[in-house]
Amino acid sequence: MRVTERVRDILGYYDGEQPGVKASLVRLLMQGRLAGSGRMVILPVDQGFEHGPARSFAPNPAAYDPRYVFELAIEAGLTALAAPLGLLRAGADRYAGEIPLILKINNANSLGTVKDEAITATVRDATELGCSAIGFTIYPGSDRQYDMFEEIRAASAEARAAGLAVVIWAYPRGGILEAEGETALDVVAYGAHMAALLGAHIIKVKPPSALVFDPAARPAYEKAAIPRERLADRIAHVVQSAFDGRRIVVFSGGAAKDDAAVLDEVRGIRDGGGYGSIVGRNAFQRNRRDALHLLEGIVSTYLETT
Amino acid sequence: MRVTERVRDILGYYDGEQPGVKASLVRLLMQGRLAGSGRMVILPVDQGFEHGPARSFAPNPAAYDPRYVFELAIEAGLTALAAPLGLLRAGADRYAGEIPLILKINNANSLGTVKDEAITATVRDATELGCSAIGFTIYPGSDRQYDMFEEIRAASAEARAAGLAVVIWAYPRGGILEAEGETALDVVAYGAHMAALLGAHIIKVKPPSALVFDPAARPAYEKAAIPRERLADRIAHVVQSAFDGRRIVVFSGGAAKDDAAVLDEVRGIRDGGGYGSIVGRNAFQRNRRDALHLLEGIVSTYLETT
Amino acid sequence: MRVTERVRDILGYYDGEQPGVKASLVRLLMQGRLAGSGRMVILPVDQGFEHGPARSFAPNPAAYDPRYVFELAIEAGLTALAAPLGLLRAGADRYAGEIPLILKINNANSLGTVKDEAITATVRDATELGCSAIGFTIYPGSDRQYDMFEEIRAASAEARAAGLAVVIWAYPRGGILEAEGETALDVVAYGAHMAALLGAHIIKVKPPSALVFDPAARPAYEKAAIPRERLADRIAHVVQSAFDGRRIVVFSGGAAKDDAAVLDEVRGIRDGGGYGSIVGRNAFQRNRRDALHLLEGIVSTYLETT
Amino acid sequence: MRVTERVRDILGYYDGEQPGVKASLVRLLMQGRLAGSGRMVILPVDQGFEHGPARSFAPNPAAYDPRYVFELAIEAGLTALAAPLGLLRAGADRYAGEIPLILKINNANSLGTVKDEAITATVRDATELGCSAIGFTIYPGSDRQYDMFEEIRAASAEARAAGLAVVIWAYPRGGILEAEGETALDVVAYGAHMAALLGAHIIKVKPPSALVFDPAARPAYEKAAIPRERLADRIAHVVQSAFDGRRIVVFSGGAAKDDAAVLDEVRGIRDGGGYGSIVGRNAFQRNRRDALHLLEGIVSTYLETT
Amino acid sequence: MRVTERVRDILGYYDGEQPGVKASLVRLLMQGRLAGSGRMVILPVDQGFEHGPARSFAPNPAAYDPRYVFELAIEAGLTALAAPLGLLRAGADRYAGEIPLILKINNANSLGTVKDEAITATVRDATELGCSAIGFTIYPGSDRQYDMFEEIRAASAEARAAGLAVVIWAYPRGGILEAEGETALDVVAYGAHMAALLGAHIIKVKPPSALVFDPAARPAYEKAAIPRERLADRIAHVVQSAFDGRRIVVFSGGAAKDDAAVLDEVRGIRDGGGYGSIVGRNAFQRNRRDALHLLEGIVSTYLETT
Repeated sequence: MRVTERVRDILGYYDGEQPGVKASLVRLLMQGRLAGSGRMVILPVDQGFEHGPARSFAPNPAAYDPRYVFELAIEAGLTALAAPLGLLRAGADRYAGEIPLILKINNANSLGTVKDEAITATVRDATELGCSAIGFTIYPGSDRQYDMFEEIRAASAEARAAGLAVVIWAYPRGGILEAEGETALDVVAYGAHMAALLGAHIIKVKPPSALVFDPAARPAYEKAAIPRERLADRIAHVVQSAFDGRRIVVFSGGAAKDDAAVLDEVRGIRDGGGYGSIVGRNAFQRNRRDALHLLEGIVSTYLETT
Repeated sequence: MRVTERVRDILGYYDGEQPGVKASLVRLLMQGRLAGSGRMVILPVDQGFEHGPARSFAPNPAAYDPRYVFELAIEAGLTALAAPLGLLRAGADRYAGEIPLILKINNANSLGTVKDEAITATVRDATELGCSAIGFTIYPGSDRQYDMFEEIRAASAEARAAGLAVVIWAYPRGGILEAEGETALDVVAYGAHMAALLGAHIIKVKPPSALVFDPAARPAYEKAAIPRERLADRIAHVVQSAFDGRRIVVFSGGAAKDDAAVLDEVRGIRDGGGYGSIVGRNAFQRNRRDALHLLEGIVSTYLETT
Repeated sequence: MRVTERVRDILGYYDGEQPGVKASLVRLLMQGRLAGSGRMVILPVDQGFEHGPARSFAPNPAAYDPRYVFELAIEAGLTALAAPLGLLRAGADRYAGEIPLILKINNANSLGTVKDEAITATVRDATELGCSAIGFTIYPGSDRQYDMFEEIRAASAEARAAGLAVVIWAYPRGGILEAEGETALDVVAYGAHMAALLGAHIIKVKPPSALVFDPAARPAYEKAAIPRERLADRIAHVVQSAFDGRRIVVFSGGAAKDDAAVLDEVRGIRDGGGYGSIVGRNAFQRNRRDALHLLEGIVSTYLETT
Repeated sequence: MRVTERVRDILGYYDGEQPGVKASLVRLLMQGRLAGSGRMVILPVDQGFEHGPARSFAPNPAAYDPRYVFELAIEAGLTALAAPLGLLRAGADRYAGEIPLILKINNANSLGTVKDEAITATVRDATELGCSAIGFTIYPGSDRQYDMFEEIRAASAEARAAGLAVVIWAYPRGGILEAEGETALDVVAYGAHMAALLGAHIIKVKPPSALVFDPAARPAYEKAAIPRERLADRIAHVVQSAFDGRRIVVFSGGAAKDDAAVLDEVRGIRDGGGYGSIVGRNAFQRNRRDALHLLEGIVSTYLETT
Repeated sequence: MRVTERVRDILGYYDGEQPGVKASLVRLLMQGRLAGSGRMVILPVDQGFEHGPARSFAPNPAAYDPRYVFELAIEAGLTALAAPLGLLRAGADRYAGEIPLILKINNANSLGTVKDEAITATVRDATELGCSAIGFTIYPGSDRQYDMFEEIRAASAEARAAGLAVVIWAYPRGGILEAEGETALDVVAYGAHMAALLGAHIIKVKPPSALVFDPAARPAYEKAAIPRERLADRIAHVVQSAFDGRRIVVFSGGAAKDDAAVLDEVRGIRDGGGYGSIVGRNAFQRNRRDALHLLEGIVSTYLETT
């Protein structure tokens, strides 16, 4: 299948980037049911690391087996599977080439109290496993944020040299932020902008709330009368903050909820110009049939307008 | 002796792994009285580092001599001897090739108050001594946990390149955990899952209690009605948490107790699908004859059902 | 265009420096409307990182697109564009060779509370993008100041070997300083002097206030009767502090204000012997026509006396 | 002089060790008046670093000159001279080959309050100076203990590759220990055991008191009825703790005292199976004649029973 | 000019040292008006870094220009010029070979509150600039002291390999010391001794007061009745503490004072066997004529007795 007009446009945003990186972006953008549409739906499976195995997989015990999530991503025609090293290594050989892989190279858990993540894999691990991208979480605001920025800078340079795309999970926390600030519109947009400045090819953020958290930012929002009532408007603001839409921004799905709520959010992302969704718990915590049904609904929603 | 069906099945769980690592796993799984059964009994001798020499060896002074523990492991037909650098170096030449060795590359003691371990040996030490694996302790939850994860990531990559298996001792402590949380079912299972995600080939944990410690995890346990009355059920849950049983999980024996109590626990491990035991103090703190008698009992118990 | 007398004089201040570095200085000094005059006007666009996207670009949304700021700098005939990695990479290919680039290799944001910056790019990034210089911020006084000095020492050695000029943003803060101390005359002069001692080729500071902050420095100012009423006098003192004027010192413009105020400050810098201005928010937060008009005014003001 | 039976026995404890390391051990064990006896008396001169020059050398000002301590060690027929880099470098050329040298590669002083040491020399310094061993102090229990363990691990690997023996000064302090705990029997034995596990060829500890400090260790001492009234018994316990006597353990002399007290302690060390003494202040703080007289007494005491 | 007897004697103290290092010491000892006398007068210009430019240069604004201090050192016939990287680089080319240079590779300022210094230059910078030595400050007692010792160990090894001499500025502070302790006799002597043990070829300390600060050191001073009334006696004690005078020890001049006071102090240094002076503020804060006059007086005072 030839690269579509839309994908070629997106590649144009990355002019000057390594051909190897563009090839990886093409692999992602031309994969599965959304191939060629310029949209993405990614299956992330790092909740076992973040919340523990029972909270992640007990609702659908089949997902304890790493092979299950590979097959789910493939069967649903998704864009990619994103996971930590041990999980990808448990399936990369068996499903080699069937689904693009994003190696999440840093991880945190909920047993500790330090706002940081451990680097749990390397670019070399990613190339050995045949991945298309590395994934990395930053916590803008936290006391360790600058160390994290320096870690992704190093990993990013290595990834680009290896022809891998770089996905940054921008999750502000700590510093001046309280809990409600972490998903505030100004903060999410700020996180997306920094991810772009740090050289991310793909940026993952949470859908923002209507709150403007930082008092120093409020005048700018008021003076420019930036709309923030509708999710689609807030999505548009975040996408604009990532180089005026010239970087791929995808949005996480969050905790498990019913199909209607998920699809409603997807429509907001779509209408605001978001590039797609990362759907974890709403996929692997449903049984296989229900999960495939919901994922088909998400994909179809994105395809409606492309 | 050819590799058995059971061992071939287990090797299948590691598809895509380096042949050298598989060869090391075969060396362990085809050693001693349990050869071919898919079960393991390992003799660990790092208590001298952790608790001091008198607390470890005064009950059976013959064990002060490193040669004693090599001979005990060999004579009892165990799977492997695991110990720190100085101890292995004191016998590796004399007993070369007679028993697989696991070099414990990090260690802590009971004089200090910092929840961390020192890296006391390298993969190169392991290969020079002819070891089959390296061993590494992580403290999920502690303030140093992410440093420890990064240390094992580096050591693990080096070990795999050297054809060595990686054994992770997952001992949660610190962070949100209090003493009773360290052996809680949800916490032990979480530790085992992270060890698997970090790339462990063999995972060592403590037998879990029936407690679910983390309030955030309780709804998952209740909703899924995960059984946790019997030790065998709890063992099964931990093994499931390690990629649905597709990683070797072994359980430590803990403080010295009578033969009946040890064998009772072994039956629980066996019936829950655990891959075996690591028995230290209950082995080298008994005199040679009693130790050999108990170890024979343990081995026989594992062999009963395979 | 041949190098002018004035530029040749300035190059004389750098005798013994690498020819490659001098070539980069020539590229900057012979660029745009101020070519050959020994003055510089630089467009910096790192406010998105420091204050967030809405506070930076909402007043003139066209500036969300990295291409806009490249074109603004080129069209206005400025000396160079200075920005973080992601932004430069988004335009370096399209505008290759049209405007000298300064890669700002460290950055901070306003979400955190730690007085430090992250290193977000390398000298190799700078050479790959065809830059003429690297930019680096130091916070003299802060608890991390010595780490920052060591970072710029390493980056500076690498930059000089690559033929790049080194621009140091000297922004004292922390330590004995309170807010008003950060722009005090003695403190700004101190910052400029240390930047020179650290090997900067170009030094960026804020226009100083008339305050002498450090009690230990007051006797020296009083005894020598250093004039500090007029901005031009204060500028002259800062320039003198940078090796008696033998290093290029440029001054930042600060928050947005009206054209008259900006031009007034520029006249003070010019009359005190300052080498030029770095104008960010006053440029890209105006619409294109107003920005070009103001920049033309600034350039003309500098040209009046050269 | 051929290697004696006794020395050959001791070398047997190090089977599997590098031939170069064994050659260094032979150089130490076949040197001076104690050659071939399996005993050692070492002159350490690092008190100038630890306590300052006047406290160390004012009692006998001739010792301010590094040449003096070289000549004292040679003339007294001692096993080796142990000192920091600067001191050894001031005599290594003049006295090349006349006395084995132990380069003490880490040091602390009494001006600071941090429980740590600085690494002040490298294995390469040791080989350049023709040393037979490196010396390294660990503070088991202190907050920096694990860093120290990692430092000696690295230095030790390098030393062994260079054919140098490794001497560990095991001085527990900090952590759960109070002052009296630092010389308690259980703690000294623990320190010696860890030094052996860390790979020391020679272990230096203080003569232990009869106290058992750690409450967790008391039951083991009581149940096994480990004798600790006589110094010789306590020495025997410490030596046993170092691989059942299969590692060379020497004991420090401590502060200056009269000849009778020194010799009394030496007899206790000798009768308990200790391998010898490290005598600093009691040697170089006496005048030359008195020092030679005492050292001759110490040597003779060790020779009496071998 | 051939090396004199006196200089040859001094070189004898460094037997076993690299020929390249000795050649650098000869360059220093055979330079200027004091050539061959075994004495040194060095011009240090790092006060701009330490105290800021106005406090350093406002009394004599000609000294803002780096060329001025080069010419002052040359014209006065001094031994060497010591300064940070940026200053030396601003004159090293123009005055190549006219005056030995000592690159001060670490620096601190008076804006911060952390007792540490930044490493601001490397041995490679020193060799590129044609220096004869590197200079390094240690703060014995401070919480960072051991890091500083490790930094100078590394730099020192590199310097010796490059044939450069190593000058250590030993400035005790922090830890158990209060302000008056920093210049106490026992503390200054301790600092000099540690610098020698750390491998310094030349040691710079402050002239000591008559105080013995550390209670633990007082008995040694009293018992040995070390004279400390006259400056010459105190100087002699410090020189003795540096390997019984077998290391070059020079003394700093401190804050500006009148000529008579300076010369008086110089006589004390000379009569106590000190090797010379480092005179900064008393040189460059006077106008050129007065500075040359005072420096001539200092040089003559040293020559009187050699």
